[in-house]
Amino acid sequence: MFRSHTCGELRNSDIGKEVILCGWVQRSRDLGGMTFIDLRDRYGLTQLAFNMESNAPMCEAAREVSREYVIKVHGTVKERESKNLKMPTGEIEIIVTKLEVLNAAITPPFTIEENTDGGDDIRMKYRYLDLRRSSVRANLELRHRMAIETRNYLDKQLFLEVETPVLIKSTPEGARDFVVPSRMNQGQFYALPQSPQTFKQLLMVAGFDRYYQIVKCFRDEDLRADRQPEFTQIDCEMSFIEREDILQTFEGLVRHLFKTVKGIDIGELPRMTYADAMKYYGCDKPDTRFEMRFCELNEVVKGKGFKVFDDAELVVGICAKGCAEYSRKQTDELIEFVKRPQVGANGIVYAKIGADGSIKSTVDKFYSTEELNKWADVFNAEPGDLLMIMAGEPNKTRKALNELRLEMGTRLGLRNKDKYQCLWVVDFPLLEYSEDASRFFAMHHPFTSPLMEDISLLDTDPGMIRANAYDMVINGVEVGGGEYSHLQQRIAEKMFSILGFTDEEAQAQFGFLMTAFEYGAPPHGGIAFGFDRLCSLFGGSESIRDFIAFPKNNSGRDVMIDAPSTIHADQLKELGINTTHSD
Amino acid sequence: MFRSHTCGELRNSDIGKEVILCGWVQRSRDLGGMTFIDLRDRYGLTQLAFNMESNAPMCEAAREVSREYVIKVHGTVKERESKNLKMPTGEIEIIVTKLEVLNAAITPPFTIEENTDGGDDIRMKYRYLDLRRSSVRANLELRHRMAIETRNYLDKQLFLEVETPVLIKSTPEGARDFVVPSRMNQGQFYALPQSPQTFKQLLMVAGFDRYYQIVKCFRDEDLRADRQPEFTQIDCEMSFIEREDILQTFEGLVRHLFKTVKGIDIGELPRMTYADAMKYYGCDKPDTRFEMRFCELNEVVKGKGFKVFDDAELVVGICAKGCAEYSRKQTDELIEFVKRPQVGANGIVYAKIGADGSIKSTVDKFYSTEELNKWADVFNAEPGDLLMIMAGEPNKTRKALNELRLEMGTRLGLRNKDKYQCLWVVDFPLLEYSEDASRFFAMHHPFTSPLMEDISLLDTDPGMIRANAYDMVINGVEVGGGEYSHLQQRIAEKMFSILGFTDEEAQAQFGFLMTAFEYGAPPHGGIAFGFDRLCSLFGGSESIRDFIAFPKNNSGRDVMIDAPSTIHADQLKELGINTTHSD
Repeated sequence: MFRSHTCGELRNSDIGKEVILCGWVQRSRDLGGMTFIDLRDRYGLTQLAFNMESNAPMCEAAREVSREYVIKVHGTVKERESKNLKMPTGEIEIIVTKLEVLNAAITPPFTIEENTDGGDDIRMKYRYLDLRRSSVRANLELRHRMAIETRNYLDKQLFLEVETPVLIKSTPEGARDFVVPSRMNQGQFYALPQSPQTFKQLLMVAGFDRYYQIVKCFRDEDLRADRQPEFTQIDCEMSFIEREDILQTFEGLVRHLFKTVKGIDIGELPRMTYADAMKYYGCDKPDTRFEMRFCELNEVVKGKGFKVFDDAELVVGICAKGCAEYSRKQTDELIEFVKRPQVGANGIVYAKIGADGSIKSTVDKFYSTEELNKWADVFNAEPGDLLMIMAGEPNKTRKALNELRLEMGTRLGLRNKDKYQCLWVVDFPLLEYSEDASRFFAMHHPFTSPLMEDISLLDTDPGMIRANAYDMVINGVEVGGGEYSHLQQRIAEKMFSILGFTDEEAQAQFGFLMTAFEYGAPPHGGIAFGFDRLCSLFGGSESIRDFIAFPKNNSGRDVMIDAPSTIHADQLKELGINTTHSD
Repeated sequence: MFRSHTCGELRNSDIGKEVILCGWVQRSRDLGGMTFIDLRDRYGLTQLAFNMESNAPMCEAAREVSREYVIKVHGTVKERESKNLKMPTGEIEIIVTKLEVLNAAITPPFTIEENTDGGDDIRMKYRYLDLRRSSVRANLELRHRMAIETRNYLDKQLFLEVETPVLIKSTPEGARDFVVPSRMNQGQFYALPQSPQTFKQLLMVAGFDRYYQIVKCFRDEDLRADRQPEFTQIDCEMSFIEREDILQTFEGLVRHLFKTVKGIDIGELPRMTYADAMKYYGCDKPDTRFEMRFCELNEVVKGKGFKVFDDAELVVGICAKGCAEYSRKQTDELIEFVKRPQVGANGIVYAKIGADGSIKSTVDKFYSTEELNKWADVFNAEPGDLLMIMAGEPNKTRKALNELRLEMGTRLGLRNKDKYQCLWVVDFPLLEYSEDASRFFAMHHPFTSPLMEDISLLDTDPGMIRANAYDMVINGVEVGGGEYSHLQQRIAEKMFSILGFTDEEAQAQFGFLMTAFEYGAPPHGGIAFGFDRLCSLFGGSESIRDFIAFPKNNSGRDVMIDAPSTIHADQLKELGINTTHSD
């Protein structure tokens, strides 16, 4: 037997027991008369004690083992003289009677501690050592728990997990596919799925009624921070339902996860239309942990001779509670912030509400006190508040003000990672007009249903049609999105014509799924959650990489196993391909 | 609301209720005065009734809907006049008051019935229609249940599910990899994993203690019946354990699955050494649903002038209970069976035990009655039994006799697919000698531990060393296999030298994992189950394809989506590859 207990379970009540423990040497302290070793496994740490006086040879042996050695000890549980109440096992220690080195270890390239001395690169190269750190392991334990609870919930709701294929067909629309050359069908390629979208719709056509899958998806995109070429989705679809059923079911899932994994009751999810989200937050995934809604000022600022406002299509601002005392340095910093190319604004007009209610702006020469008071009214501003106003083309201005709002939320400590605000954003536009291509594109996919009440707009004003599409947003992060599809042939054909497809083109690109629908498709809809992202949110981290056991870096490389790599000429020959790369 | 109930749930107790149902038209019968429609969904069938007398327009409408139309009906639950007690809903029918066609359907290319008229090819092309058949859906429901129960069991045993990467590195050893050209690292390729072997061992080095994953794996092999290029494993590994712990844990998993999914108690799994399996069954995965063990006759048949036996290294046979009355035609058929190239034997010597205990063989001229009685003793044969004896080179003869034994088991109805016999086959050889390469190969992988008691053979007779490796066999099918690894550096080096690796070669091929082990590896071991196979066994089918939602054919093609396929020249250019295929 290798162990009678783990390193996390011995307590006061075990005192006197003979035990066997195994694990890694976390640290070793030689105090002359006594040597102590902290032994670590997945479950915790236990202190081993070696007494030079009572057992010199054992103590000598203990001094020989270094950090990260794998050892096995026999011993007796004893009450500690100086207890460590921060450790679950801190009331006891083990008087070791036998010590066996199971495997020696060379010195790790960084310390296996919470505050490790290892940088990102070295920790990724030795990810198997990084994973020994308890915070990293805790992230993956959380991920395991999230997956189990997701499945338990969906199973109870009669969803069936169905594995869809990984080797599928490349499709020209959408993001770039990873492809796999076929040896048996030379000159041909499989593609790795960007999502199981087609297959989940086929499962609905097949009458599976309720499908889900926690599934790897792949996109060969240029990576930015926190995008991975392979990522995991919770992919779901259900039939014979209305949008309301979908929202209830999946808000139920997230409520279940918060309850079981974090012990938090998030209550009912509020809903916000896409139009409102854009109007009040300047983005389709507002962080609603804090209010600070946009207020529009066109009515009260125009025609007073301030050209910036007079020329602007939109004048809009936010009210930062209690920031009237911001120094010049602070307000300048914020102006620098919005002028950065990523934000792209020209500046900020400030107005401060003094403690006495008096208002003072950076554009006082254009506006009377009375006029400025009207501004304050629009914002419902109170003494001590700071108004921050931007102006220009509406979309660009809202986008920039959104960045400023988030920055202010962060500065004011309103974006606490342990507080969760979830919401549904609904009624996304069905179509997006591309000036470049002079045509509409489907914002989700061509089989998404329009809202029933907007169907008449198909003929008159397609750009205004709202889709039966929805996103779940938590703390300003889009964690999931989906759409509802109940397309009669007539509407499908109309959609393809609006999207500028000839019958032949529609057939070539979507013919396979359209054919399947002709055999009797139920009304259906679903959602896909980004599982890596959902885990990172639950873990209170901004990095999805911390929640992936073996992530890739920003060049799509796994630096631990050194992939991708060159392959043998024989392999290429068998596959019937050449590389055109010249080195 | 689309439905108040599913098509599987209405019973006598619901009579009088107003209900809404949705589903597909399974069949429709127009009896003149009455029209009946069987409405189908995932949960069952419900009869809809339309009465020409009481509601002529509704009845007319019902006559317009064809097979596989998707419809929604309002109606009242009524007791049926002629009940169908074979159907769970067979006591009731719905008097329809409103009928809505949600989507029409064109006529499917084959009937959606248990005994469909569709051949294999057409059903694969329209797999989404094939999946509407309840037996196919039941297979995938079973698969879902198996996965959920696997996770529940392993979660209770503190195993963590960890997702390992799909885009990994190609390794020269083993089966052929599927590869994925990297666009960002041109000239380089990822490989798809044949198994997560390396990663699961790294997770043990990382201290994860207990890992599992239900995971897709990939092998670019020439396909034979029932091999798929992508397949699913239940992959598991645990640390600080002995082999006994592994066998107990995973026999517990399979026991749990049989109990919860099939309601069968399989009890303790017997164990058989590889040596015994070969000696008594001629194969390493014996079907133990029936006995019919091999009996060796060298002691009693040699030296009587029958050259075939005298020249043979091994004379071995089986006893077929109650088959003494087999006709000449039957015994000749079996001789033809063993002479087929797949079996490759020369013939069978028969001996029949008459009802009176007298024995008569096809080689009576060489053996006295007394001698033949000794044969009967070896087999413990009884009146009415048929002895079937083969002779020749031991491995070849055992292999052929194994085929004959299985054939006899099938003929005698001893291989009932609803009866389950599980066992562990243990103590596989560590090494396999290849005459061609004049060297040893690792039968599992180079890090598998030898049995402790065989370690001394490393220097003297490596071919005789038994490995700490084991397979789980159910009904003659290997459903899982694994090995235990607790390698000290000394033994690892010895192994590499026996395998003929120079230090440099060992480093090049296994260096990465060897390095990881140097940082402190715990003793660990695990198992991988073939999940598709396990599901098909539980489903009582020999075809794994029936248990995969969207399988590929023997050419590795998905004929439904038509993959693999050619891709755009632009895609190839971006990836920096050319195809050498000429059409």
